[in-house]
Amino acid sequence: MIVGYFQFSPEFGNRDSNLEKVQDTLTGAKADLIVLPELAFTGYFFEDRDELSNLAENTSSSKSVNLLTKFCKNNNFYIVTGFAESEGNKIYNSSLLIGPSGLVATYRKLHLFNTEKEYFDPGNLPLTSIKLKEASIGLMICYDWVFPEVVRSLAIQGVDIICHPSNLVLSYCQKTMRSRCIENSVFAITANRTGTETRPRGELTFTGQSQVVNTKGEVLASSDVNDDDLVVIEIEPLIAKEKLITENNHLLDDRRPEYYEALNLKYK
Amino acid sequence: MIVGYFQFSPEFGNRDSNLEKVQDTLTGAKADLIVLPELAFTGYFFEDRDELSNLAENTSSSKSVNLLTKFCKNNNFYIVTGFAESEGNKIYNSSLLIGPSGLVATYRKLHLFNTEKEYFDPGNLPLTSIKLKEASIGLMICYDWVFPEVVRSLAIQGVDIICHPSNLVLSYCQKTMRSRCIENSVFAITANRTGTETRPRGELTFTGQSQVVNTKGEVLASSDVNDDDLVVIEIEPLIAKEKLITENNHLLDDRRPEYYEALNLKYK
Repeated sequence: MIVGYFQFSPEFGNRDSNLEKVQDTLTGAKADLIVLPELAFTGYFFEDRDELSNLAENTSSSKSVNLLTKFCKNNNFYIVTGFAESEGNKIYNSSLLIGPSGLVATYRKLHLFNTEKEYFDPGNLPLTSIKLKEASIGLMICYDWVFPEVVRSLAIQGVDIICHPSNLVLSYCQKTMRSRCIENSVFAITANRTGTETRPRGELTFTGQSQVVNTKGEVLASSDVNDDDLVVIEIEPLIAKEKLITENNHLLDDRRPEYYEALNLKYK
Repeated sequence: MIVGYFQFSPEFGNRDSNLEKVQDTLTGAKADLIVLPELAFTGYFFEDRDELSNLAENTSSSKSVNLLTKFCKNNNFYIVTGFAESEGNKIYNSSLLIGPSGLVATYRKLHLFNTEKEYFDPGNLPLTSIKLKEASIGLMICYDWVFPEVVRSLAIQGVDIICHPSNLVLSYCQKTMRSRCIENSVFAITANRTGTETRPRGELTFTGQSQVVNTKGEVLASSDVNDDDLVVIEIEPLIAKEKLITENNHLLDDRRPEYYEALNLKYK
């Protein structure tokens, strides 16, 4: 299975330009699955909910989704992309799996980062496993990385490849995702953005360094801090079904949930 | 608070020699808390349960515990140490907190590694927070590192410092413990052993590289692969009470356990 990501710097508020850039770069790519950054078509650092509302789309009537569906059909691949999603009076920081037949799955970011809490609604959909060709994939977004419960919940449900659109501004994620892969024996594709957004609320610089990590936590491919980079690489996703870290230790079956009751408590 | 570890190579089966080495090295150390490796007085690679049984001690009648209590009293510090613990017909791979007044707390390894499953009984005590001076400490052992649920369960209960006696043979732990510290904002002291044990079941080489990690995942002190090393360092444990990673993001209160129900499922 050939998977990868496109790291770039979306232009704030210019959906057409960002869609064009993605299409220009990905056209003809030989791949099964390409992951794009979080909020790849709108940009990230919204001034307020009104501004976000004007840029968000309902997936059922989205020109972007329709265009990307045709694009996936023409190129015979799937895309996971960050997406500002409106539904009724709610707006979610979402990730979409889009393929040749249209929208396959939606994930809505469960853990909102910093000012996102002021203009996005928190995600309200379960973490699930999605069948894609011979693999099962799972969607998470950016700051979800800090919660080990996210990848764990996906791995327990059989996910082999974590698709992780990101707009990272902190420096911890890339290394921590390697731990996530080790502790769950999964692959992870972190598609981060680059560039700086100077907006009414201030300035944010994103950290690039997108990566594909294997089930042993080894970085199979990565990009630098600043450059646009389309990376595709062949992996054998079914390796992730192997959860034995020794002949007597299964990473998931060895768990002892009866001793993890504190996970349901509030911090004291 | 002054904390640290003593990394060394326990001699298999020679409790007196190992106790003597610990006392010779730690006498006069100015510290509040020193962590020793897993199974620090017995060695690790038992031939079978009979051999282990002959070396394990019941804490209520243990000469080692009595001796270490006096040693802690004379030196005015606390020790966390790995310990082969017998209780009735059970034998646990345990970690003990011992201080000037005696045994304070016992933890029994919840996740047994490889052949340990053949001669140890799995731990049967909860993960708890233990008050020690101004800090709260938590005990875990070696291979528990691969389960993010362990440090998470301790952190939610208010633990500031993870005490982590280890006999590591894999290479993943030290980096992953840095992720554990970041995702929970806790300190961690991993006291690993060194050396090689050539025993009837084969040969095991332990990886040293003990470390003290702060709440940002930074390594404050570490040792090399092979050498005996007593390390003590001053930390401010109450920094671990600060769980905000941004002004709007609390590492523990931002969790959304209602979306982590898969954590209670079996792997499929």
